[in-house]
This record gives sequence, structure tokens and C-alpha cells, in this order.
Amino acid sequence: MKYSFIETTPESHFPIQNLPYGIFQFKDKGPRAGTAIGEYVLDLSVIDDAGLLKGTGAEEKNVFSASSLNLFMELGHPTWTSVRKKLQYLLDANTPDLRDDEELRLKAFHPLKDVEMLLPAKIGDYTDFYASREHATNVGTMFRGKDNALMPNWTHLPIGYHGRSSSIVPSGTKVRRPSGQRKPKDADPVFGPSIQLDFELEMGWFIGPGNRPGEPIPVNQAEDHVFGLVLVNDWSARDIQAWEYQPLGPFNSKNFATSISPWVVPLEALDPFRTPGPQQEPEPFPYLQQTKDGAFNINLEAHLTPENTEQSTKITNTNFSYLYWSIAQQVAHHTITGCNLLPGDMHASGTISGPNREERGSLLELSWRGTEPLKLNSGGKRSWIEDGDKLTISGWCQGDGYRIGFGEVSGQVLPALSEAKILGTQNVKK
Amino acid sequence: MKYSFIETTPESHFPIQNLPYGIFQFKDKGPRAGTAIGEYVLDLSVIDDAGLLKGTGAEEKNVFSASSLNLFMELGHPTWTSVRKKLQYLLDANTPDLRDDEELRLKAFHPLKDVEMLLPAKIGDYTDFYASREHATNVGTMFRGKDNALMPNWTHLPIGYHGRSSSIVPSGTKVRRPSGQRKPKDADPVFGPSIQLDFELEMGWFIGPGNRPGEPIPVNQAEDHVFGLVLVNDWSARDIQAWEYQPLGPFNSKNFATSISPWVVPLEALDPFRTPGPQQEPEPFPYLQQTKDGAFNINLEAHLTPENTEQSTKITNTNFSYLYWSIAQQVAHHTITGCNLLPGDMHASGTISGPNREERGSLLELSWRGTEPLKLNSGGKRSWIEDGDKLTISGWCQGDGYRIGFGEVSGQVLPALSEAKILGTQNVKK
Repeated sequence: MKYSFIETTPESHFPIQNLPYGIFQFKDKGPRAGTAIGEYVLDLSVIDDAGLLKGTGAEEKNVFSASSLNLFMELGHPTWTSVRKKLQYLLDANTPDLRDDEELRLKAFHPLKDVEMLLPAKIGDYTDFYASREHATNVGTMFRGKDNALMPNWTHLPIGYHGRSSSIVPSGTKVRRPSGQRKPKDADPVFGPSIQLDFELEMGWFIGPGNRPGEPIPVNQAEDHVFGLVLVNDWSARDIQAWEYQPLGPFNSKNFATSISPWVVPLEALDPFRTPGPQQEPEPFPYLQQTKDGAFNINLEAHLTPENTEQSTKITNTNFSYLYWSIAQQVAHHTITGCNLLPGDMHASGTISGPNREERGSLLELSWRGTEPLKLNSGGKRSWIEDGDKLTISGWCQGDGYRIGFGEVSGQVLPALSEAKILGTQNVKK
Repeated sequence: MKYSFIETTPESHFPIQNLPYGIFQFKDKGPRAGTAIGEYVLDLSVIDDAGLLKGTGAEEKNVFSASSLNLFMELGHPTWTSVRKKLQYLLDANTPDLRDDEELRLKAFHPLKDVEMLLPAKIGDYTDFYASREHATNVGTMFRGKDNALMPNWTHLPIGYHGRSSSIVPSGTKVRRPSGQRKPKDADPVFGPSIQLDFELEMGWFIGPGNRPGEPIPVNQAEDHVFGLVLVNDWSARDIQAWEYQPLGPFNSKNFATSISPWVVPLEALDPFRTPGPQQEPEPFPYLQQTKDGAFNINLEAHLTPENTEQSTKITNTNFSYLYWSIAQQVAHHTITGCNLLPGDMHASGTISGPNREERGSLLELSWRGTEPLKLNSGGKRSWIEDGDKLTISGWCQGDGYRIGFGEVSGQVLPALSEAKILGTQNVKK
């Protein structure tokens, strides 16, 4: 097994087998690209400046001194591979170049705890899919009854919708409880703070290089356009959603915030964890027939921590491999009409739920729309997220003696603004 | 009435009362910002360099030498007003500064017919609303029957959904017929080129400066965030839409192309054409109560021209003022949950239909889902758009002796790619 001269424990999310990419800020230096290794971030702009990335195809292009990974995403799969190989070589315990150059090491490495992580990309378009059969079935059962749970189209195509890219925020950003319209049963709609605030445990992937308008990406080339994966919490206001979603889909109920983990794990790092997805019946159309195994064995957990306590409760324990539609199928379907994908676009899987109760990826499902509240370790119950609650999603692949980790995405919920502030009759604090 | 030293006819779309903004390219010079006056474009980067925009708040910031209007949109309403006033002064028949400086005039003006118009902004997020009651009722009647035509939420909130910004193209861009899944009645779904390709006559508006996450824009401040308006054709594949849209809304049926007119008409130029919109019943929630008249009297037409003929048919003759929800209401609703709008975002109204048959803004409605084909002046009929058809939308406000025009948005439809090309078994021509 490969080891780095930067030591890591078997539980570390960031061993030399991972090397995720992110955008970080350290002290008063501007944002730049880095890779995580153990408890450190390696500043890629510094090692590019030092000439250590020569021959990769990404060198001397200001790709790593940029404030987003978009340029790197645009360079494409062969370049991603050669940069990854070079970094694994440079960080290897047996490679002296960086290991023995103390001056360069001091400039290039910073403790992870001392840097601020930003969004990894300037996200042009964000698409959210609905690829978990268990999730779609649970939601459909609650909203439309058992007999109409799964729409007739669901097993034929990966259902997706366009999301709001401006409100995607990095882990740690606080999220304000939204206000909007909801309709109590047998009553007129009312306006006020959402009383059914929820999370959605998802994973997302970043696109590069993408395709030209009118030219679909074939399913067996689709993974060449997937730069890497992150954890996603697609915050959702279920009461607002139930009232607004027909006939054009969720809008305000989803567009106030989507949180993502800051480290993008390269698809290549996940290759050892490839696994067949669920059996697909009926057989998909040819444009959705993927040759390779398209699922990945990634453990996923969600934890809820109320305000004023350190005691969290694990509320979900699920796996990415439950998804019915693969990443490649979702990408191919997205472009089948000719829709052009651009570097930095983000797709997300939709809520990932498994067959068992504890594998459900949202409070809507876990509390079965509030009828079966969850007990918290710190006391109290939860049907929906309350003000001050912190929601954290983490994920990793378990290798033999190492982990490919995604770190975490977390966010705490702030109380709603008052109606006076919303109406502009009282100023919002700047 | 104001006149410019650049002469215009009463039918001109671009008199001194209009002064729309756009991004153009002339010969081998890079993209830059201009305003249209009569048959000319005035290069704003040239007159900024010449010092003529001093005191406007937009000068010497490289705002007009940029390849998009985003920076200008970000500067906000007071700056837009002062630039507009300055341009009206500089172009006035009685102002000698530009009129009598032949050297500067030669550098600053180009015939419109000689420039290439590009997208006016780098569009981050694109949102499409559904604000025409007549359109929503027509579509609802066809898809769900007369009794469920208008969803119960429709009169309470401006329904909208997130669209695909990467596939927004400027007028003149050819659009390839999309392929995808559709489901014939009482049969299994099939894959192939869309056989129900449609246009949607809409108008769009560009956002600047926008709001911070978690802080909604009050409805009576909303117009301060509207830079200006364009014509929009939101191409739609009705057969793909009918099969895919439940439960998360339209996706592939809309994401292959949206065409817009290149000149952004400032909201201020439309002020003389303000008019009350339709009576709203029930009374909207306070966050949707606009004090000013929020509708605008804008004539809108759509023309269809088959391939190999010059003879076009006017297929729609409608008006922007039919929209039930105003621009300000749509903007306020978009942000009510705290969604942040950014400079360069585009919103569109959804299809604009009026109460009469010829006022319907889509072929879906005009041909009543193919049951009442339209007769063309050049012979033949149309239920849906055929390969080679060119669809053109134009629009203008009729003033006393002048027009505030939007120019036009047009696009011709190319035949679908073969299935071999789509599957990647045959290369797409580069």
C-alpha cells in the first residue's frame, strides 16, 4: 500500500489514495487550489510555481492560483489523471523532492484547521436528480398515496430538475429558516416561517469539460465529464414545497440554500469501490445502457446536533450504491436533448434512501411526515429541523487499511426573519 | 419630443427615447457594450475612453469594454439612470459634443447591419415563471381537463421554476430538434426526435444588483433590481414534456435552447407605457402587494417562416399587459424564502397568452394540441414546428410619434441528429 511522508491514520479521510481538490484561503492570501493530505492542505499554486507540476498539462496556466477549479475542470480527464499521478508521486514517502525541501514544505503546507474552505467552483448551472427509488417511493406514498407512489415515467428515465446555483454554499455557512406560503389542510393558505424545514442527504458531482449544444454525451463517455464528487445537503421546506410544486416542480422550497462539502473527491479515487447498481427493469433505452458498473460503495451518515449541546444523534446511515440510476446515466440523460454542460456545473443525485428505516435520507421520510418523530440522544424529539439545530453529513469509502473520505458538510439553522424585516418596514441588519 | 442627430423614422425600434444596451462584436475587435440608435450601434467603450461618460458613476471602470453587461447591471439603478440621461444628452440633436466631432463619430458608430450581436450578459441563473392566467388555463385544460385547469395555488403565488442558463442563445442561433423519450397514448414510451416541437412567446428581464442570501427583496423595491427587458423564445418539446414533467417539472423538454433578443431595453424606457395589470382576486399576501401599476403595454407578435420561402405568417398577436403577475411580484416572490439574485440573472414571464385565440403565445395553444392546425400564408399547415421553420418574435411599445422597440428574436430549426450520432457510434461533425 502507498504511504505519504505526511502521516495519516487508517480513519483519516484524506490519505494519499484520495487527494481531493478544493479552494482555500489562508490568512490574507487570496483563494487558491489545494489538495488535502492527512491534517494538511497542500497549496497547488505553490508547487506549480516551483515547477513540480511540469509535464502534467496543467502547469503554468494559472489553473491553481485561480479562485475556482473551473479552469482545471475544463482541462479534461487525461490532464486530471496526470496531475493526480504527479501528486501521488510527490507526496509518496519515498519521493524526496518535496519531502526534503524544508523551505518549500513550509510554504506549501498549511494545517487544515487554519484555512478557510470556499466553494470549489463557480457553479453555472445546478441540476438535482431524483435517482433513489426508495426516496421517490417514500415521498410519492406520502404525497399521492401508495398506489401512485412511483410515477410511470420513473423507471424509464432519471427524473431531474434545474436547481438554484446562486444559493449553493460551502459547509459551515449558516442557513436562515425561510418564510413563504403553505396551505394547512382544509384551510386557506397562510404566510409565515416554514414549520417543516428538512435536510436531504445527497451527493453531487462537478462537470468538466462538458459538451457542445445539440451534441449529447454518450453514456459510456459520460464519466469522462465527471471531475469528482462532494456531499450535498439540499435544504428543503416541505410545507412550502407541498403547496407550490404543482405543476412545474419545487421552487422556493429549495432555492434558499444548498450546502456542499468543500473537498471534491476525484472519480478516479473511487474506482476501487465500483459496484453494480440495482437491477434495472424495464431495460433502459440504448442511450442509457452503461457498460461498466456505475455505482460506488460510499457509506453516508447524517447527524443532528441541537443548539447548546455537543451531543449529536446519528439519524441516517445509508449508502450511495442504493441509487437506481448511475451518475453516467444521469449525465447522458441530461444531455440527450442536446443540453450543453459546462465546466463547473454541479449535478446532485437527489435524496439517497435505502430500503430500511434508518437508511432514509430526509426527516420527511425518517419521521414519516411528522407522524413518527425521532428521539434524540440529548433528549427531546424531532419531526423537522428546529432553530439552532446543526445538521452534518459525512461520507467515506472503506478500503483495506485506508479510507477515501469526503469530510463533511454541515450547517446550522438560524431563526426566520420577522415579517416586518421581510416586508422592508424594518431594516435588515447589514 | 426629443430627437437625435442620428435620424430615425417613427417606426424605428431604437429612437433616442429607447437606448437599449447590448454586447456586440465589430470586425476583429473584441466584444464590448453598445447602445442602439436608429440603424447604428454606439460603442460605449469608445465614448467612455473619450471621457464623455464622466460623472455618471460608470466611467473609467472598464464596464463597457467588458464582454458582458454584468458589471453595469451590478452598479444599480441610480447609475443606470445617470448613464441613460448622459446618453440622451450626448445623442440629442442639439448637443454638439459627439455630433460635431467627426473623428470620434467615425470610431464610435457602426451600422447595426455590420455588427454581430452576442448574449448581453453572463447569465448565472435563469428562472422561468408561468404568469399568464390564459396560458396556464389553456395548458391545464389540455393536460388535466377543464375542471383541474388552474391549480389551486396559481392565484396565490407566481408559479415559477428554475431553467437552464447554459443553453440561452442570442437571436439568430440555429436550434437543433431534440431527441428524447415520449409516450404515445396506451403504448410504451419510445425514443426518437421530438414530434411536437413548439415555441413560447415570453419576455425576460435581467437582474442587478440583487440581494444577499436570506434577505428577501420587498415588492415595492423590486423594480430597482430590474435592469431591463428582452424578448424570449423558450423552445419546448411538448411530447417530451408531457412524459417527463411529473412530479418535478419540465427538464429535458426545455433545456436544449432558449433564444433571446440581444438588446436589453431599460425599464425606465418603458415607464410611459405602465398600465394596471388584471384585477387580482383573491387579494395577494402583503409581500406581493405592489403600490405602482406593474404592467406594461407592449405589443408582441410571432411570425413563422418555412424553409425556402420569404413568406411568413403572423401566428400570434398579443400583449405583455395580459400577464396576471407583475415583474415586481415575480421578483419579490422569487426571493421570499431568501433566495439570492445576482447581477446577470435572467427571469422570464412564461408564455404570454391573451383571451382571444390569435393572442395565444404557443403552438400548443394555437393548434389546441394539434387538433386545429394553423394555415400558413405560404401554403400548408402547422400544428408544430417543422425542420427548417424560422420562428421570429418582435415587440414594441407605441408612443406618440415614436416606438420603444425590442427588435426581434429569431431562430431556425435544424433536423434532429441521427440515433447513431447520438449513441456515439458515428462521430458528430465538428
